[in-house]
This record gives sequence, structure tokens and C-alpha cells, in this order.
Amino acid sequence: MRFRHKPWAEQEIQNHPEIVIPDPSLNKGDWSSFFERNQDIHLEIGTGKGRFINLLACQMPNVNFIGLEMQTSVIGMALLNIMKLEPERKQANIILIEGFAEDMMDMFAENEISRIYLNFSDPWPKNRHEKRRLTHHDFLEKYRAVLQNNGEVHFKTDNRRLFEYSLNSFAQYGCLLRHISLDLHGEDGPQDSFSRAPSSREVMTEYEQKFVKKEVPIYACTAVMQG
Amino acid sequence: MRFRHKPWAEQEIQNHPEIVIPDPSLNKGDWSSFFERNQDIHLEIGTGKGRFINLLACQMPNVNFIGLEMQTSVIGMALLNIMKLEPERKQANIILIEGFAEDMMDMFAENEISRIYLNFSDPWPKNRHEKRRLTHHDFLEKYRAVLQNNGEVHFKTDNRRLFEYSLNSFAQYGCLLRHISLDLHGEDGPQDSFSRAPSSREVMTEYEQKFVKKEVPIYACTAVMQG
Repeated sequence: MRFRHKPWAEQEIQNHPEIVIPDPSLNKGDWSSFFERNQDIHLEIGTGKGRFINLLACQMPNVNFIGLEMQTSVIGMALLNIMKLEPERKQANIILIEGFAEDMMDMFAENEISRIYLNFSDPWPKNRHEKRRLTHHDFLEKYRAVLQNNGEVHFKTDNRRLFEYSLNSFAQYGCLLRHISLDLHGEDGPQDSFSRAPSSREVMTEYEQKFVKKEVPIYACTAVMQG
Repeated sequence: MRFRHKPWAEQEIQNHPEIVIPDPSLNKGDWSSFFERNQDIHLEIGTGKGRFINLLACQMPNVNFIGLEMQTSVIGMALLNIMKLEPERKQANIILIEGFAEDMMDMFAENEISRIYLNFSDPWPKNRHEKRRLTHHDFLEKYRAVLQNNGEVHFKTDNRRLFEYSLNSFAQYGCLLRHISLDLHGEDGPQDSFSRAPSSREVMTEYEQKFVKKEVPIYACTAVMQG
């Protein structure tokens, strides 16, 4: 989704290099010491206005969060939202990076990330754009590189075709699939036999709230990356 | 689904012990020599009126087919359909068994089956009936026992909840998932990147034809059993 250009965004981003990291490649391999506390790092790719990652960062103080977003206007909004929620930034466990998923291996070293969130990624429905889907084999390669062994990709979408594609892509790549849901917020709830999905996936993004109001089913799964 | 009682069915079954095998346990471990030709055996569990397995048996003469069905009236119909399609039974590569999936290990020895089809199985929606679902862990154990290594379970259903349950159950059990489709006969067709599903799954059961006419999406996947 394209957002209206926000002329203030660029300036605001420059004013807050402690939140939107100007040159993330400088921290490659060293993110754990960059944060106030040395703890697991979760990365959201395509963080949008940041609702999801902001709420998670509040709910899970024992995890450090990085939101990656490529659109300046959007990351500007995410920045404002972080500043609202964390005015002092003293306990800060959340930062943002303006950049592209393609370049993530310039930003993160091997095993540096313990979980990746993909929420409502662009479905790129045309076959000729398949390589741009964030669950394409080439992206899974990058995720495996930066994730710890048994690191997880938590995936949510409203797009049936993208979900179908992604399940097949994860399975073909050798990921273990867990917590597959074909209607995440439906009345029936999760089925009993399987271990509960982590509560983080109940946290809704901005898009997700709108879809759920319209009773659009949300698809979700966890893909466990193996060494 | 319950069918109207067919009073003729029992007699007809007794008249054709060459098609509906009276005591299948006698052939346990020896099915390959039972058929005219020694070739792979595919088993459909819950074969209904037999449309699917009948068509497959015609399309795939190099495979032997066994249809397992627990309802006398229904298997009576399947019997009539087989007799219609194969009046001479000379090249016969299809037989039926009246019985329960629970008892399949009395009927088949280890490695005796190379593929299992589950088509539109009863969803048993209540949690307390979970163990009756044909993709419950306990059934997967039986399938693994009778299937060859890398033997496959081909699963189709119109029931979203059962499909969700089954994907999780297969994945949890350590099966490799392939050819996952969330709308098997939808306009979009399969997605490009992945190898084609075998053509057998395009063959429709009686139920499936009705659902597709009503534009109900059909879910499908292949679960590869590993040793």
C-alpha cells in the first residue's frame, strides 16, 4: 500500500537517529550490545505504522524489537507512534530501520535474530513478480542466514493465494510448519490438539483490525527454520 | 453422510466375493499376489460410491486399487459401479473391502501400500470426537505402518476446519507437506514455483462435483510419510 507523502517525515527521522538508525550496517553483528539489554532480537519486516511491534515491545520487555520498513512516510508515522508510547526512551527495546528486506544481510550477521514477523506483506499476485514475495525461496535463504537455528518466521496475511504460496514455499524449503490457522480470529478459535501459538500473534496490525471488522479471515502460520 | 438402507446390498456383496473381499485379513502381506498384476497398491479410505477410485483405476492400469468403506449400502453402490465399468473383470485392478480404517493393520502388512487417499472424510467437528478424524495422530501411525517409506497420503476436503486440523496434524507428525491448495478447482490454478500435483487429484468424487458446482472451495494437500 502506498501512503500519501509526508513532507515532515524525512526531517523527523533525521532528528531521531536513536530510533531510526541511520546506518544499520554499522551495527551488523553487534546489535545485542546496541540495545540497552542483551536479549533476543525479533525483527518485523514491513513494519508499517508500527502498531504491532509497538504493542509487542510493551508486552515483551525481555525482547528487543527491530522494525524494518522501506517507505519514508510510513516509517515517519511509526516513529511518531514509538515516541508517543515511549516518551523517555529509557527502557527502550525498539528501534526502526529504513530499508529493504533484500538488503537485510548487510544489516544482520548470522544467528543474530531469533524471530521474524511478516505481517500482511504485499501479495505480488502476478507470477512474474513471484520473486518479490517475502516468502519466496530467495528471502527464506536470507531469513535462515540471519536467524538462529530453530528460529521462527511468524506469518500472517489476509490473502489466500499468498498464504497458499507461502505454506508451499516454507514446506518445500524444509521448514517445520506449526500453528497453521485458516481463520485466526474466527469464532472457533484454535484446535485443541496442538500446542498454543504464542500470544504475540493475537496482537493485531492496523490492517488486521480493519479486515477483522469486515470479517475477512486472517491466515497465519509459524515456520521453524532448521539449520 | 448416512445413506438410505439398500436391502439388496448385502446379497449383492455376497454374490461378488471377487470384488468385495470377504475376509481381507487372509490377504495381509500377500495383496501383491492377490491382484492379477504385481504393482503398486493405492488405498482409498472411505471410498463412498466409488466414483473416484473407479476413474483412477481406469486411468492408472499400472496401479492396483483398494477401496475401504464401512457402510454396507454404500459399498453396495460402489460394487455396482465397478461392475458397470469393468464388466469382464479380466484386467481388474480394483477391489473393495467392507471395514473400518481402525482395523487396517489387520488387513495390510508393513510397506504394503504406496499411497492412501482420504477424500471428504467426516470432519467430526466436536473436540471430543477428535480421535475419529482420519488425520488424527493415531490414524497417521497406522498409515505410516502400512505405507512404504516416502509413501503419500493424498487428502481432499471441503471442510476448512478439518483441513486446518489436518495440516497441523501432518506437520506435527513430521510429514513433508506438498501441493497444498486452498482452492483446488478455483480459477487461478496451481501456483507456478512448485512441482505439479499428480493428476489423480483432479479426479472428482461424487461429493466434490456437487461442491464445485456450488463454488465451495476444495482444500487439498499431499503428506509424505517419512520412515
